[in-house]
Amino acid sequence: MDALTELREALPESVVVTDPDVVEGYRFDWSRDPNAGTPLAVVRVEDAGQVQATVRWAARHGVPVVPRGAGSGLSGGSGAVDGGIVLSLERMSTVEIDTECQVAVVEPGAFNRDVKVAAAEHGLWYPPDPSSYEICSIGGNIATNAGGLCCVKYGVTTDYVLGLDVVLADGTLVTLGGKRIKDVAGLSLLKLFVGSEGTLGIVTRAILRLVPAQSARSTMVATFPDVDAAARAVVAVRRELRPSMLELMDQASINAVEDFRTMGLDRTAGALLLAQSDAPAGARGEEVATMQAACTASGATDVFVTDDPDEGEMFVEARRQAFPAIGARGTLMLEDVGAPIPLLPDLLAAITAIAVEHDIEIPVVAHAGDGNTHPIIVFDEKDPDSTQRAAEAFAAVMAAAIKLGGTITGEHGVGTTKKSALPDQLGPDVMELTRRVKTALDPDGILNPGTIL
Amino acid sequence: MDALTELREALPESVVVTDPDVVEGYRFDWSRDPNAGTPLAVVRVEDAGQVQATVRWAARHGVPVVPRGAGSGLSGGSGAVDGGIVLSLERMSTVEIDTECQVAVVEPGAFNRDVKVAAAEHGLWYPPDPSSYEICSIGGNIATNAGGLCCVKYGVTTDYVLGLDVVLADGTLVTLGGKRIKDVAGLSLLKLFVGSEGTLGIVTRAILRLVPAQSARSTMVATFPDVDAAARAVVAVRRELRPSMLELMDQASINAVEDFRTMGLDRTAGALLLAQSDAPAGARGEEVATMQAACTASGATDVFVTDDPDEGEMFVEARRQAFPAIGARGTLMLEDVGAPIPLLPDLLAAITAIAVEHDIEIPVVAHAGDGNTHPIIVFDEKDPDSTQRAAEAFAAVMAAAIKLGGTITGEHGVGTTKKSALPDQLGPDVMELTRRVKTALDPDGILNPGTIL
Repeated sequence: MDALTELREALPESVVVTDPDVVEGYRFDWSRDPNAGTPLAVVRVEDAGQVQATVRWAARHGVPVVPRGAGSGLSGGSGAVDGGIVLSLERMSTVEIDTECQVAVVEPGAFNRDVKVAAAEHGLWYPPDPSSYEICSIGGNIATNAGGLCCVKYGVTTDYVLGLDVVLADGTLVTLGGKRIKDVAGLSLLKLFVGSEGTLGIVTRAILRLVPAQSARSTMVATFPDVDAAARAVVAVRRELRPSMLELMDQASINAVEDFRTMGLDRTAGALLLAQSDAPAGARGEEVATMQAACTASGATDVFVTDDPDEGEMFVEARRQAFPAIGARGTLMLEDVGAPIPLLPDLLAAITAIAVEHDIEIPVVAHAGDGNTHPIIVFDEKDPDSTQRAAEAFAAVMAAAIKLGGTITGEHGVGTTKKSALPDQLGPDVMELTRRVKTALDPDGILNPGTIL
Repeated sequence: MDALTELREALPESVVVTDPDVVEGYRFDWSRDPNAGTPLAVVRVEDAGQVQATVRWAARHGVPVVPRGAGSGLSGGSGAVDGGIVLSLERMSTVEIDTECQVAVVEPGAFNRDVKVAAAEHGLWYPPDPSSYEICSIGGNIATNAGGLCCVKYGVTTDYVLGLDVVLADGTLVTLGGKRIKDVAGLSLLKLFVGSEGTLGIVTRAILRLVPAQSARSTMVATFPDVDAAARAVVAVRRELRPSMLELMDQASINAVEDFRTMGLDRTAGALLLAQSDAPAGARGEEVATMQAACTASGATDVFVTDDPDEGEMFVEARRQAFPAIGARGTLMLEDVGAPIPLLPDLLAAITAIAVEHDIEIPVVAHAGDGNTHPIIVFDEKDPDSTQRAAEAFAAVMAAAIKLGGTITGEHGVGTTKKSALPDQLGPDVMELTRRVKTALDPDGILNPGTIL
């Protein structure tokens, strides 16, 4: 009996899919990494037991396993591997809210949005909010330790993970953490799995901390003559306070959004900052006034403030549209480089210089309040020269971030598309340490090979 | 040349200490674990290079290395090992504040208090605040992922660690993270070292995130007829909001404090809750009123509120005095078990039952808002029967926490005194995973052997 037949016999009929048309849909994530392979099969598991059965089978036969949530990753981390299987967790998508413990018990295929909606029904809130929250999975969020817009005040995914069930490389299922808030019993294995991009184990259940529903927000939109002034305003705001959102858009991204869908942004602005305060009613006005003063002092040409939630949400939606809007202009290479906040102006200046030097369009949006930027390299994939310049710019942007004491990836993960730059950031000793941990947990290297390492 | 002579020659003269009187002072931490050994020497390092030289020497000779900060640990994690060395980091105690990046760059021997004071000079704040903050080291805080009183709102040590320099078991120094806020490049090794109790590496420098100075606080003291009512009030408060402090003291701890130093607490109260709100001025009154209503509805007999910072600090100081005050009554075994918040009443009831069953005094204070409790077992170390009953109660309290889906240690660490209960909490598979990670990073087992594992 060949290996695939053995897998079919171990699982219900509908779980193992080899139809080439269906399989094709599971080869790429949103990075569209052209190096993605063709898998033997897609295994659409329905429960943790099936994950264990699949991994045990893979371990026995030395078959690579690529875990996949919604496939919305931006670094190639869920791209398929030749001769491997794609372990799709999309069918494992239940969300249960424990109102007493204020946690969500979530399967990895549930969308981030599903958790938010379920929590909101009980007056609770799951803060992490990648721009793609409506279509990205919690499993992927955990795999990449995803961030988002509100993280400047509320932290990132790892700050909300209280417990995980994880299937290890030999098929063993371990339960880490639980519904308790503080727990230092043993090594921080829970935190090790968060951000491990499917290379150390496969999450089959997560216990996520919820917090009371967010207060009403006031929204500020400040326009600046150029990106540098906006970046300096970010540094000034962050010196004073932690707003609940502090996003930056440059002129190119503003115009891309307006071309895509008229949102009423000022096309003539060199850059804009979109900020929110969710401070309690009695204190919100002061927070907004502080941000307003910092923007004006940094050269803002106009500052608009609204307490109207719908109007505020319209601006946030405009910001979230940046990826699809810019995507309409060509093929994209998405960056998420970061730097210490005071060096944000330097990082943005370096990106501008790289765009000029490589003669390529690089609109920028940024979770500016965290120093985390999204330079978006737009190129023509049918033009080898354009593709080449894009690839060089992509590498140059990462090198610029490293030079500033920053990071090649603030929230998307290393995946396959950034791994060549990882040693430049971490150095040989940390790479060696990384390999040692990987080998300890996955000695045969069957879990998401080619990602990170 | 014997090994110790070789060590002496590798380091400045004052660094290696073998004088038995001095060495005796480095054998125990505050747990006074009677199983602590007698080390060959105490090595009082002055910089990371000396840590590397010491660890390289130890690796060569297979000598156990016990890292030690201020020795204020409560689980025996820095107790000495026979034939090993104690690596004291007390002389490495610089604190530098980077106001632009809002971080503190700290050597491990600096006290938690030193970081708070240095940050405050720049209007910044380092939140984690173990009760022992005036005399515990940042290195120890990182080793145990220490919590404290404000953690109910502001999180624990790991939430503030942005970067670490770590000397590994072979003497290699690695730098993890940095001054950037968001960074997902590679595995979460940074988080793995936090809470590893000196078993995976030795921290020689930490970059700690600072936040804007805490706002003015209002303080609420609510008295209850019994512990159960107070615990139910905690559950009710936490359903509504996250106060900046929510501590519980039972009648025995109230009276111990009053016996020790008159603080004006109500000796007749069955239990009290001490809560603070640091919400902005315009919203603080409402937060306090919400807490007050929750306490009254749960059966509080009296609720006192003050906006006066000195008066508020007096009550907090009374709470912090609980350990020394109870320590005046006998020898202590300090617990820090936790449970999911809704089960706090059950955990406290179980502790009461254990005290009765084992005929032993167990006053309780608790970081109640996190579900993290400190049952303090008081016994007579000269009376073998009392000592035996204490040890049995200590184990019974941990078993009770595990049974409730809780943890044997919320913030003190496993050390040597709790390791026998660790497998009961984690189970064999997670213990095996723990061993695999330990072996990958410290194959010869020279780093803090006997701690955790």
